[in-house]
Order: sequence, then structure tokens, then C-alpha cells
Amino acid sequence: MKILVDTLGADKGYEEIVKGALKALENHNNLYLTFIGNEEEIKKLVKNNTDKINYIDTNEYIKNDEEPALAIRRNKKSSLHLGLKALNEKEYDGLISCGSTGALLAGATLITKRLQNISRAALTIVFPTEKNPCVLLDAGANMDCPPELLVQFALMGSVYSKGVLNTNNPKVGLLSVGTEEGKGDKLRKDTYELLKNSDLNFQGNVEARDLLSGNSDVIITDGFSGNVLLKSTEGTAITIMGRLKKGILGSFKAKIGALLLKDVLKDVKNMLDYNEYGAAPLLGVKKAVFKAHGSSNARAIETGIDAMVKFVENDIINKIEKELAKKEIEE
Amino acid sequence: MKILVDTLGADKGYEEIVKGALKALENHNNLYLTFIGNEEEIKKLVKNNTDKINYIDTNEYIKNDEEPALAIRRNKKSSLHLGLKALNEKEYDGLISCGSTGALLAGATLITKRLQNISRAALTIVFPTEKNPCVLLDAGANMDCPPELLVQFALMGSVYSKGVLNTNNPKVGLLSVGTEEGKGDKLRKDTYELLKNSDLNFQGNVEARDLLSGNSDVIITDGFSGNVLLKSTEGTAITIMGRLKKGILGSFKAKIGALLLKDVLKDVKNMLDYNEYGAAPLLGVKKAVFKAHGSSNARAIETGIDAMVKFVENDIINKIEKELAKKEIEE
Repeated sequence: MKILVDTLGADKGYEEIVKGALKALENHNNLYLTFIGNEEEIKKLVKNNTDKINYIDTNEYIKNDEEPALAIRRNKKSSLHLGLKALNEKEYDGLISCGSTGALLAGATLITKRLQNISRAALTIVFPTEKNPCVLLDAGANMDCPPELLVQFALMGSVYSKGVLNTNNPKVGLLSVGTEEGKGDKLRKDTYELLKNSDLNFQGNVEARDLLSGNSDVIITDGFSGNVLLKSTEGTAITIMGRLKKGILGSFKAKIGALLLKDVLKDVKNMLDYNEYGAAPLLGVKKAVFKAHGSSNARAIETGIDAMVKFVENDIINKIEKELAKKEIEE
Repeated sequence: MKILVDTLGADKGYEEIVKGALKALENHNNLYLTFIGNEEEIKKLVKNNTDKINYIDTNEYIKNDEEPALAIRRNKKSSLHLGLKALNEKEYDGLISCGSTGALLAGATLITKRLQNISRAALTIVFPTEKNPCVLLDAGANMDCPPELLVQFALMGSVYSKGVLNTNNPKVGLLSVGTEEGKGDKLRKDTYELLKNSDLNFQGNVEARDLLSGNSDVIITDGFSGNVLLKSTEGTAITIMGRLKKGILGSFKAKIGALLLKDVLKDVKNMLDYNEYGAAPLLGVKKAVFKAHGSSNARAIETGIDAMVKFVENDIINKIEKELAKKEIEE
């Protein structure tokens, strides 16, 4: 298995990415890596497995404030353009990047191409919950979604949950403002009808407050509200943990208290740690494309690549294609 | 000032509501209350100020699982129907209820009537943040909103922030998936254009993760995403606090630690305490209509009525009407 690793455009620099990828390389015997970035600098970090590593040398990358579709088309020497172009070659199985989400989405659609029968690719986040991890899509790739697209998301999310997270008959929930049928806007009502009549294990509407409860394996929504959901969860957690930290550092008594509570505080922090879930796959394109958080550390890259290896080994894309074809025949 | 207090349909029963309202009665000299509910039972809780209290006697109320518009029309003896009908009489200034949100919304539109030039009323939540409280609307009343409606929300929210929360020139943010202009779906792009060209202090797009930062005084969105935002914030906070509590109760060492950290934990809990912000006004109707949380305690009812008194004293509805009329002349 050969994976492209984009080392540019990350908040913490290329070192964390290279370190994480080298760690993943040790986890899998059949893994080969191609680093995209400053070859000379990266080489300084590589001590072992040199025969399993290749390079695409560039210093250019697409910045977060650039217009994604325009930038990916224009900057042919950018790490993402070079990487996604290489990904089209048969030898490569996947690409992981911490760079601009918009550019990755635009590039994956323009350069890597979408699956047949998929109208738009979806950013798929694996979410820590009180029970099993939950798959949420779309997390921000598609702003204005028709109901048919949400059904495609449900199908892709179910295959991913089954194949990568080992869920048995994944429960699919539709994000809405109340659990009863008929709750929500027009998009929700129309999608509910379609999902109810599908082969999926549809459990009805779910509310945003139940996200972390883990009662659903797959949660479906449009990219706008999916992004709102993710970012508000993240923002609330950061605010609470920040306030706690500030209070703890504010007095000697509190510091001793925090020391005694260390295990509990660590448990809460771990529950909220996105680094343990690595990276988000972009479902609907013809190769494995994973987006890691801009501020990923080595651990996040390692777990991201681990998930990608499982994704490729379990032939998820082929399975999605089969499900889509089956659906088409039924229709 | 005369206020109607719906005592039925609350999770914690009528006692907490009556207790909170009686506390508010002591805070304001010019306040008169009319309790809607079981007169005999309520009377047992009333010791003082009996001359300032009236009753509308009923035991019927609209349940959360009833179809709101249908129920409010049919059940003419329900506390909400009776209350909203009384509210149309000149002597009453406002109504507060913990009952079904849907029925209150439907009833306020059907029975209390909307302001001229307002196409739909909005549920307006006052949100605790790291700085000043922030006004969010719509929090779930309107599912499919055109951009013009979001501009009306921005105007009403600004008047509320200025008049009730004493904000000077309230900063208005549009909820979106990124701060740059052009981010978001079609509704966001169209609304951005309208807000940019308005007289409001529009500061551009804001992200869900910045909600608790307090950088905006008013945040505008459609009822679907507003509800998702609120409920995910609530859900995340509940999950984190629950996990902390479970951990603390799990060991003696942790219990001691929590004791030493008591002030810090209390501070975090207070920051997240919606009871301190009482109730949410329904902006766009001709009288003050406030929705309190279904599980409100006495303190929430007290602060809710306090906010309503300020709302009426500051003549917020008149001010909204004037702003709307000004806008119409400009157009």
C-alpha cells in the first residue's frame, strides 16, 4: 500500500507530520510513503525504513485564505496539486493532508474525480461519544444539499461505519430539531421520507444534544449545519476546559485539588481528544483522501494513517460503489 | 404592569413557577400577576401581596407531543389559549410560560398577532458568554427562512440587546462556516449582502466555535441551525459536566480533590447556568411573550420575569416598531 503524505500547510510545521507518518510506517508491514514537501528537510528526520520512502519535492502550498478552487487550478506546484495528481496514478492508494480544507475538497473533486453516481463528496468526521465513535457527514464540504445527496451520505457513512469501525448494522440518524417525524425544515422532511423508504437502518431524527450520547452510529446532515454542530461542540469544550484550567491555576488550594482529580480531568480531556481519531475521510472520491486537523500533532497523523490503512485494506471505496450500483438497479 | 404566568406544563410542576413569580413580585413595586392554573393549589402557596394577584382557573394544558397549531386552536380551555387570549386585552403587558414551545409559538402568532412588517416571530435566546451575554435568534421558531427575515431578526435583536442588556451599538454577527465574506450556503451569502448594506453594526460572519467568546452581541441565523447550535452547546456541556461528576464520585481521592476545587467547579457551572438568564422572548409579536425552559426552577422564573419587566419598561416592542417603520420609509 502506497500513501502520499502532504507535509505542508500545517499549523505545527512539517516535523509533527513526518514524525507521525514514520510512526505509522512502523505499525504496518506493507506500507510505503511518499512525502510531499521539502525533501532535504524531511530527509533529516528519516532514520529507518529509507527503502520504503519516496519524495515529491516542493515548497509551495495553498494557504487557508486563498480561494480554494482557483488556487488548486492555478498553483500546479503546490503540494496538494502535485499530491492529488500523483494519486490518480495506479500505484497510489491514498493521500493525507493538514492543509486547506477547501483546497483539498476542490482538488479531490477536480483532480481525483468522484465516484460514479455520487453527485458531491462529503467530509466525514468520526466523533468520540460516550459509547462507540459516531460518523458524522457532511461536516462542511457541501453547503446547499438536496435530499437525494443526504441519502447518498447515509449510504456512504454506513459502509464506512461497518468497514472501518466494525459496527454491526449501523444505526443512521437524521439531524433535526426534534425526534418526532415531521420536525425540521423542508430538507429534513423530504430526506426523512427518502430514508424511511431505504434499505438503511434508519432510526429517525436525532437532536444535536444527543450527539455525544452515542445512540447513533451515523448522523446525516447538510454541510452547513454539520459544520455548526462540530464547531459549537468544539467551542463549548474548549471554553469549559479553559475556564477550568484558569481556575485551577488561580489558587494553591485549587492546584492541589486538580492534582487529586488528575485522573478524572485526564479522562474528560481524552474523551474530547480529536487527535485519537486522527483524520476525516472525504467520502465519494475514487481514492482514499483524508483531511487531518490543521493543528494535528504526530499522534493525530499516526492514527489518521492507521485509519486510512484500514480503509484501503477493507476496500471501502469498492463497497460504496457496489452499494451505489445496487441502489441504482433497485431504482 | 400586569403579567400572566402560565403555571402548567412545566417539568418540575407548578410550585417552582409560583415560587419564582412571587419572588419577582417582591423585586418590583408596580408588578401585578395573574396565575393561570389550578387556583386552589396555587393559593396555598401565596402568603403575601394577595391584592396584587389574580387567577385564571384551569387544569388543562397543551402537551409537548401534541401538534402545536392544532392543539392551540382546539383546546380553548388550555392554559396557553386562555393566557394568550387574555394577553390581547389592554390591561396585560406580558405572558411567561414553561409549556410547549411549539404551542406558544403557534399561539402567539394565531392569538396574540404579529407586529406590522414582521413576517414571522423569532425565539430569542440570551446566551451566557465569556464577556457580555449574547442574543441569538432565531433559536428554533422558523425552519425555512428567507434572507429578508434574517435581517428583521438582526434589527429586533439589536433593539433587544440595546434596551434590555444595555449594550452600546450592539455588534451583529451572521452565523456561518467561516469568517470570510462568501462563506456559507446561499442563505448566508444573500443575507450577508443585505446586512452589509443595512444601518446595523454588522461585523460579518461568525463561527459557531466563537459563540461563547462573547465577541458578538447579537448572532443571527435560521431556526434550524440556531436550534442545532443551542442544543449541541447544551449537550456538550452536560456530557462534560456529567463525566466530571461521575469521575469525582468514583474515588475518595477525587472527592477530596473536588472539594478543594469547589469554587472553580462552581464558577464553571454558573457560567453554563441558563437559569441565570431566565427566559427567551419571542420577538415580533405585539406583546411581551417569554418562553422559559421546560425544566426551569424558581430562580429561572424570577430572572425571566425580571427581564420581562425591563422589556416592558424599556418599551422594546414600540422601539422595534419604530425601527421597522424607519426601515420601510428608507426602502
